[in-house]
Order: sequence, then C-alpha cells, then structure tokens
Amino acid sequence: MVSERECIDLIAQLVKPLDNGYLIRGIGDDCAVLRKEGDNCLLLTADTLVEGVHFDLAYHSPYLLGRKSASVNMSDIAAMGGKPHACLLSIGFPGRVPPWLDDFMRGFIEVLQAHDTLLVGGDTVMSRNDTVLSVTLLGEADKDKVRYRSGAKPGDMIWVSGYLGNAAAGLELCRRGFLGGGEIPDKWQNLIRAHLDPEAQVQLGDILAASGNIHAMMDISDGLATDLAHICGESGVGAEIDHDRLPVDECLREAALALGMPAMDWVLRGGEDYHLLFTTEAKAEQQLLSLIAAKTGKKMFAVGRIVAEQGVYLLCGDERQEISFQGYEHFKG
Amino acid sequence: MVSERECIDLIAQLVKPLDNGYLIRGIGDDCAVLRKEGDNCLLLTADTLVEGVHFDLAYHSPYLLGRKSASVNMSDIAAMGGKPHACLLSIGFPGRVPPWLDDFMRGFIEVLQAHDTLLVGGDTVMSRNDTVLSVTLLGEADKDKVRYRSGAKPGDMIWVSGYLGNAAAGLELCRRGFLGGGEIPDKWQNLIRAHLDPEAQVQLGDILAASGNIHAMMDISDGLATDLAHICGESGVGAEIDHDRLPVDECLREAALALGMPAMDWVLRGGEDYHLLFTTEAKAEQQLLSLIAAKTGKKMFAVGRIVAEQGVYLLCGDERQEISFQGYEHFKG
Repeated sequence: MVSERECIDLIAQLVKPLDNGYLIRGIGDDCAVLRKEGDNCLLLTADTLVEGVHFDLAYHSPYLLGRKSASVNMSDIAAMGGKPHACLLSIGFPGRVPPWLDDFMRGFIEVLQAHDTLLVGGDTVMSRNDTVLSVTLLGEADKDKVRYRSGAKPGDMIWVSGYLGNAAAGLELCRRGFLGGGEIPDKWQNLIRAHLDPEAQVQLGDILAASGNIHAMMDISDGLATDLAHICGESGVGAEIDHDRLPVDECLREAALALGMPAMDWVLRGGEDYHLLFTTEAKAEQQLLSLIAAKTGKKMFAVGRIVAEQGVYLLCGDERQEISFQGYEHFKG
Repeated sequence: MVSERECIDLIAQLVKPLDNGYLIRGIGDDCAVLRKEGDNCLLLTADTLVEGVHFDLAYHSPYLLGRKSASVNMSDIAAMGGKPHACLLSIGFPGRVPPWLDDFMRGFIEVLQAHDTLLVGGDTVMSRNDTVLSVTLLGEADKDKVRYRSGAKPGDMIWVSGYLGNAAAGLELCRRGFLGGGEIPDKWQNLIRAHLDPEAQVQLGDILAASGNIHAMMDISDGLATDLAHICGESGVGAEIDHDRLPVDECLREAALALGMPAMDWVLRGGEDYHLLFTTEAKAEQQLLSLIAAKTGKKMFAVGRIVAEQGVYLLCGDERQEISFQGYEHFKG
C-alpha cells in the first residue's frame, strides 16, 4: 500500500530538476515558491477536497464548507509567511449543480475577501459520483523572509500557535451526532467550530516571518506528530516534544473523558488545527512572545526542541517514545 | 437544469468586484490575468478532469492521459498568447494509488518539459469513487500583447488554426471500439490522435499575440459554435461562419460516412480540438498568412466574419442558421 507521502516522493523523483529561471522551491513545502521581479516571490498552492473524505455535508453547512475550503488553502500561504492575492476554484458535481452552491460561495468568498483575495477563475465540471472542490491560491511573500520547512536547526525551540487537537475532537463530536440541536454542552462548541470553521493564521504568519526570528515554519494540517516529522525530514534534524508543555484545551480533556477517547491521540495525531508550527533560536523566546502579544494578543506555546538525532520523540516523565508520522495519513498504510 | 455556463455566471455575480491591485482580468476568459512588476502579466488557469466524464482509461493509455492533462491546460495559456512556467497537479484516487501513476506522470511531465514548465507542487488525496485530476498552470504574457475573448470587432475576419472536429470524430471511433488492434484504417489514426493526444498551440499563440494583428483569441475546447459564442458574448458582437470555408479533414468525412454520423456535428459542435480561434482586421490577412507560414509552416483558415448583430450564424448557400452554444456543454440542459 502506497501512502500519500510515498506517492508525493514518487512524483518528486519523476520530476527531473529543470531550471527555467522561476523555481525557488518546488514540491515538498506548503507552497511552491517562484521567482519574480522586485523584492517579492510568488507562492502557489492547491488543495483538493472530496465529499465523504474531507468533508461531510451532514455536519458541514454549505456556508461553513465554503469558508473552510478557502481557509485551508489560505493556511498554506500563511505557513510560508506570505499573503494571498488570487484564487481559482474548480467544482465538480455529479450531474447537477447542487442547490447549496450559493451558500457555499458566500462562505468561500467571505474568507477570500477577509484576506483581500480575489476569486479570478476556475471551472465547474460534471463528476461521475463525487463532489470535488479544488482550490488554487496565488500569493506573495518577501523573498528574504519567506519561511520553509527546511530551516530547523538543533537547539531551536519548537512552537505552536494554539491548542492542539481541537479540530479532531470537534470532528469526533460531529460524527457522534453532537452537532447543534441543544444536545451539546455549550463549552464544546469551540471544538466543533475548530473542525467546521478553522481560521488560517495569515496575519500571524506574516508577523512571524517578518520578525526575522523564525527558522522553519509550516501549518498543522496532518497533526503535530506528522507535521513535525515533515519539518525534521526537510531540515535533516529531529525533535523532542515535552508532553507536559503541549497546549491542551480544558474542553478537549472533558470531551475525551465523556466520549471515552484518549485525549493525546487528538493532541498529537489530530489533523486540521491549522495553527502554525515553527522553530526559533531559544534566545528569541521573550522577544517573540512580546511581539506576538503586542501585535495579536495571542499566546504562543513552546512545546519542545529540535535535536540532531533524527525522529520525533515525545518525552513524558522518564519515557521517550518515537511518534514520527503517527498522525493522520490520507492513504492509510 | 443549470448549465456550466449559468453556473459560472452565478459565481461571477457572487464575486463582488474588489480591487486589490492585482486584477487585470478575472472570471470569463481562458486564464485569469494578474498584474505584476515589469512588462509582463501573470496568467493563471485550472482545469479538473474526472474519469468517466473527461477521460476513459479504456481508450486513454496512462501515458497519453498524462500528456493530455497537461496539454489541455497549456492550451488555455496559449489562448492568451502567453507562455507557461509552473504547474501544480492534484490527483484524487479512490482508495489506492493506481499502478498507472508512473506512466501518467511520464506523459504529464514530458509535455511540461516540452514547454519549459516545472511541476512545482500539488497534492494527492483519497477520493471516494472518482479518479480526479486537477491541474493548475501559472504563466506569463507581455502585458500589452495578452489577448482576450473580448476584443472582436465587427468586420474582423474569424480564423481557426487547424481542422475542426477531428477530436470529436476520434472520440467516437474510440467509443465504437476502433482503437488499435489493426481494426482501424491507418488514415483514421490522426482522428484518434486528435482526441487522445491534442497539442497545445503555445508557440502559435505567442506568435499570433506578438504579431499585433489579433483582436480576440481563445482555444477551441467546447466546439466552434460554443466557443465563438463566448467570443461574441464577451465582445458584444455576432459572427457569421461560411459553411464552405470550414476546414474539414478528408479522413473526418470518410469516418462520418462509415459510421453514419453527420460530419458537421463534429465540425461545429465537437469539442477538444484545442486549435486557436481568433479574429483579425480583414486587411491583415496576407501579412498574417505569410508570418505564420514562415514561422511555423502551418496553415490558418479564415472561416467567417464578425458582425454587429449578436449571435453566431452559419451561412450555407442561401440559408442562415443560428448555432450559438449548440456545442458540447458539460452540464446538459
């Protein structure tokens, strides 16, 4: 069985390096990075969402699905420290244009407009069975400030920009029917919202990249264990995560208890949080915390450190467990 | 029943005009056109292909499907008079990565490399049922030379860059089982090739745009009647096509006779020829023919004229028949 990662590796091997003067960074980061005139570079990213795999209209209102379809792509631009400008949307429907298209588009365009991004094209096609949404975003970043997965160095601190696992907990709540209708405790609403309406950290990514303190950055789409393994793989380093420093929402612990699920599965393996995951020199800690607090009012969480030995390790008391790529993989092995 | 065109219109209406400084041309042409520094503009286009709707692996070898998936997107860049640079490919498979991925990628990358274009990213996702290919291309064109659908003027000559309907005839031959195995007359092979392995007219589009003689241009993806209606709609004009000047391959006539199909259906309504459709001032005729013959060795065919009265008309002897949007539509009404 070929995993998504192996599939991307296979494609990357087939692509012979060919310099047409435009390439700065190709396959293997959140966005492709392309050269242009001036101080900026171009960022290009695309994601495809398939009904029944990436979203379920039983939980997702068309309006929120529109928002999320835009946000998850925005998040890839945020992960490079860039700003989005233009968007293409391809929609495939089985047979008929669904009645929910209007509401979907309203949500989609709302998120684009919140980030000063234009929907400039795309297409609608007939599919055979699946409703498929394919979004392309074009953005820009300062050539010298764009951040990659490959910049992590031993000794770096590892940071995340928000609570981990909330989106995975929210998905589980949706699956178990705890959606709306008064059945669900109010305090779980932010877990459900984390799944249904994630926020791309575009402003934060821009501030972080501009700070000059960030060594490596990506967004958390496949879960901390997997995404940190991506940073480590691209940087040729390893990582140690401190179990007790992981930012865990009290609601998540309560929901895990109520549902009989292990909270740490969500925290370490849960995808789609769309927070930023980044590394900095350890000495930048106070400067960074002050900057982010002043500019955004948000908290950042230091969760571990980059080490020379490859692999991603979770430290819990005296135990040290390898957790690389234990997160969600689109193609299960 | 909502057609693809109505669906795009609906989306275009929902997109509130918002000038973020990047937009030159949005929804409604072969590519979106975006501002950048320097003399060039950016071209951005995406297309989604669904198995069983846009391709059939019973006819399409993976290698040729790879070539075609790249070529049909290249054709959108050609239609603006631009050059492609970078490509994203999203592939969705139901469950498992298919064994044909290697051959598909070989064909796909071969066409990219022939046009000095890099595969810089994309993703692979699991779909539920359908194999889905979504291709994004980024290119550039000289800001002053990029050509739109909207430039046609009454009195213009209408041109096509090759035989019409061959791809549709080839598709019908494939459907009826005339593919390979010695069953098919050699002379029909170029019809089948026109369907399976169309060539994007990138060099020609560039030469035409640079000539300064072209008023409006697009590629023929949905058939002459429909695509000319797009040019007329965007330009606020109409068109008259001379039946007897339509370039029809002798093979197509023979295949139509043998299969008992009306040849003109293929010629007027057949999609996927991926020739260029363009208009020029009438007085530019000789200059254009000489230029194209000298630079490419190819023939161009003048097939009619732009008129002030809206609609697309076919003139045949004394008859004049409205044929706008009679071509293939992805969503049948």
